[in-house]
Amino acid sequence: MLILTAKDIEKFYTMPEAIAADKQALKIYTQGKSDVPLRINFDMQKGQCLFMPAHIKGKDIVGIKIVSVFPDNPKLGKPSVPAQVMMIDPQTGEVCAMLDGTFVTQLRTGAVQGAATDLLARKDSKRAVLIGTGGQATSQLEAMLTVRPLTDVAIFGLDANKGKQFTELMKKRFEHFSANLYFSENLDEDIYQADIITSVTTSKEVTFNGDLVKPGAHINGVGAYMPDMHEIPSNIVEKADIRVLDTKDGVFVEAGDIIDPIEQKLVSKDDFLELGDLVLNPQLCRQNEQQITLFKTVGTAVLDVYVGYDIYLKAKEKGIGLNI
Amino acid sequence: MLILTAKDIEKFYTMPEAIAADKQALKIYTQGKSDVPLRINFDMQKGQCLFMPAHIKGKDIVGIKIVSVFPDNPKLGKPSVPAQVMMIDPQTGEVCAMLDGTFVTQLRTGAVQGAATDLLARKDSKRAVLIGTGGQATSQLEAMLTVRPLTDVAIFGLDANKGKQFTELMKKRFEHFSANLYFSENLDEDIYQADIITSVTTSKEVTFNGDLVKPGAHINGVGAYMPDMHEIPSNIVEKADIRVLDTKDGVFVEAGDIIDPIEQKLVSKDDFLELGDLVLNPQLCRQNEQQITLFKTVGTAVLDVYVGYDIYLKAKEKGIGLNI
Repeated sequence: MLILTAKDIEKFYTMPEAIAADKQALKIYTQGKSDVPLRINFDMQKGQCLFMPAHIKGKDIVGIKIVSVFPDNPKLGKPSVPAQVMMIDPQTGEVCAMLDGTFVTQLRTGAVQGAATDLLARKDSKRAVLIGTGGQATSQLEAMLTVRPLTDVAIFGLDANKGKQFTELMKKRFEHFSANLYFSENLDEDIYQADIITSVTTSKEVTFNGDLVKPGAHINGVGAYMPDMHEIPSNIVEKADIRVLDTKDGVFVEAGDIIDPIEQKLVSKDDFLELGDLVLNPQLCRQNEQQITLFKTVGTAVLDVYVGYDIYLKAKEKGIGLNI
Repeated sequence: MLILTAKDIEKFYTMPEAIAADKQALKIYTQGKSDVPLRINFDMQKGQCLFMPAHIKGKDIVGIKIVSVFPDNPKLGKPSVPAQVMMIDPQTGEVCAMLDGTFVTQLRTGAVQGAATDLLARKDSKRAVLIGTGGQATSQLEAMLTVRPLTDVAIFGLDANKGKQFTELMKKRFEHFSANLYFSENLDEDIYQADIITSVTTSKEVTFNGDLVKPGAHINGVGAYMPDMHEIPSNIVEKADIRVLDTKDGVFVEAGDIIDPIEQKLVSKDDFLELGDLVLNPQLCRQNEQQITLFKTVGTAVLDVYVGYDIYLKAKEKGIGLNI
């Protein structure tokens, strides 16, 4: 069995590879060629533990993400969402790999936004906004920088000190991209100029003013994953010309961003596509430079398992990781 | 995270400890203080992969057994039922241990029979029969030897060569018990004399003649785990004075041994107790030396998870296993 830590994976597995894997995974999902049972959820005394298995049938890839949400963990110096991804060998049924699931989650969640931004944003997108500076923000920024040659990215968080520190870290980390990264002192102005907006918060209130979004912009809603969370303005969901979800089954049940405007009859479920539809049928992507496009993701075990297996195969080939 | 191989566990964890753990686990199960979702089953091209999670609520123990059934594995020099048990730390939600699940399965399955034999067989039991010489047979034999001071154990398998080889191996392995182990050349005679009979096969036909079972005997049905398997004679299920199952939910759905006599109206579901009932209320055990007692097990994730956590805690205390 191969043990792969975050450091191991970071050494060799790139965002473009993760984006390609996520596109494949969601294509397979939309084609109905995967089996994703309802996740199993145990309420523990100090948090929740979730079991998220998936089977990608044609390639016979089986795996499971074991992920916990323990809000008090940071007090113990531990991540609040620890996770592991276990992969099964299709030839022997043995557990063949265990990957740092927190890192796989960050990677596949950045990559799924990257996939959507790549398929939907204007090719000439220059300016982006990133709202949120938490654990998922780094890979979200990397994904935007990867798929479009951005010149400027405004980073915003409610806690300005934390946001500025995060911005400095990101400047160093992504200096090989030529973009100017800065902390947004005037979010309205930055939204008004943005070609791409990515919100990655668990906010119960919208994180930007939808009236300011310009024609041709692409918006990603990444953070909100529960019905009471709502970071994307409903008027943008209504106004968007193309509305894309990672999985309809997930988003329609879990994401307040989309549940609320459907309940308010601003849009109907028929107004949404899946990202897999765009991969299967590229004509469904942006048709002109004026359309506003929207992507919303809540995640699915298919992404963890497909990306996890891709990482495992490549690590094995390169001799990376600990064999036990 | 602590990695525990079969060799690590074998070094320090004893059958009496496993029997005590199984009794506790099934007591908790019968009290309704555990959460055992339906197992998730993926049909793969070369076999099946099963995910079996459980939550023991009061102690907040959470874990999952990942087990595959790949019949062609022996051709590759691999076990046909490879498995791992993953445990979750109740304080942090992290995966804190990975145990060889094939070994944990053998141990907890031997131990659950040991628990039943301990609670039900006559205290003065001297002679036993073990039918079946497959992967689960060793721990079944150990469990019987552990709970009663047996003088003789007849071992039987349809393949006499394999059975004799297995018997020789067992003689060496269990020479510290004073019992005489021998391959049964006359199963009817051995059944007729037996105080304890344990059948651990996947046979679709009964493995012994129920008419020969003597008053006072205790019978364990361990192997059959599907509706089309049937190793225990229905007339013994009918004749038994006390009929005990590991879990009613499991056995009534999975075990042909019990499903068939219920369908034939030889017995009804109300005629069965759970092992947890006996632990909670010892008066329900054997009342006299003439009663025939019967135990049937198909297994439950509660056993894997409870025993797995018991092993993990003790290994950690003793500094055994690989920390990664």
